[in-house]
Amino acid sequence: MRIMGIDPGYALVGYGVIDQKGGRLEAVDYGAIQTEPHYSIPTRMKQVYDAMKILLDRFQPEVVAIEKLFFNKNVNNALLVVQARGVIILAVEEAGIPITEYTPSQVKVGAVGYGKAEKRQVQEMVKMLLRLSKVPKPDDVADALAIAICEAHSSKSISQVGRGGIS
Amino acid sequence: MRIMGIDPGYALVGYGVIDQKGGRLEAVDYGAIQTEPHYSIPTRMKQVYDAMKILLDRFQPEVVAIEKLFFNKNVNNALLVVQARGVIILAVEEAGIPITEYTPSQVKVGAVGYGKAEKRQVQEMVKMLLRLSKVPKPDDVADALAIAICEAHSSKSISQVGRGGIS
Repeated sequence: MRIMGIDPGYALVGYGVIDQKGGRLEAVDYGAIQTEPHYSIPTRMKQVYDAMKILLDRFQPEVVAIEKLFFNKNVNNALLVVQARGVIILAVEEAGIPITEYTPSQVKVGAVGYGKAEKRQVQEMVKMLLRLSKVPKPDDVADALAIAICEAHSSKSISQVGRGGIS
Repeated sequence: MRIMGIDPGYALVGYGVIDQKGGRLEAVDYGAIQTEPHYSIPTRMKQVYDAMKILLDRFQPEVVAIEKLFFNKNVNNALLVVQARGVIILAVEEAGIPITEYTPSQVKVGAVGYGKAEKRQVQEMVKMLLRLSKVPKPDDVADALAIAICEAHSSKSISQVGRGGIS
């Protein structure tokens, strides 16, 4: 089972691809899509979309898990992240791949087993479970891997909405 | 000058296409993209995107003006509208058309000349300026036409960010 985890954004999209073979997880690739601030927002939306298409084509995941967003204090920034989430979902849908979504606390439960785990604990667990030599940077990349691990550990009972109803 | 106005959404996207010839405005077409609730959100995002591509191709606007969103009380609904706005912007960007955006009060100023105008006043002005026999329904369609009229009436001084920096 190949899983892609996505930490959505418009300046930086973290992605992590893992293979689940029996109880074993293996990191296939991870990194980030970055867009430059000197481009317009529409251009950066297209850059995120185009890069997502390339990643989906290259890694052919069987499922894509994406972080469920909550509004935070920086509303303007949140707007842009949500718009980028729209084009990411579009790219996944166009590739015909099911999409799941997890809240940050679900990701923590799925990765560390504890919904109030600290960021650093999640990162260390990502490193350990995937047998990486160090914690992937920036944080968005480690987050994307944590989301992919959460998907790997999930059962249908945990928000696996698939084609049914991602919100 | 051909202008398309967009009132973004995921269940219903209002669009209005107008031609500006000298001081005269003419309605070319208006209507709505609708998506059905029994489809998944990713599918509906793709339906919005695909329909936008068709409309852009059919009407070949020189500029697209879109309503700038503010967060309201229904945050979950707002999230979906913003995601849809992302795929709409993507479709416009892919068509190589500049995008402008206006706040609701800018649209009122642009269409009626008064930022606190009531919805009904805006709708009547749309009907009058475009010499329509009745106010277009649903409201999203009249809104989209008002946005297009706002763009027609705008100068560079009013938020015409074009490729420079739509947020």
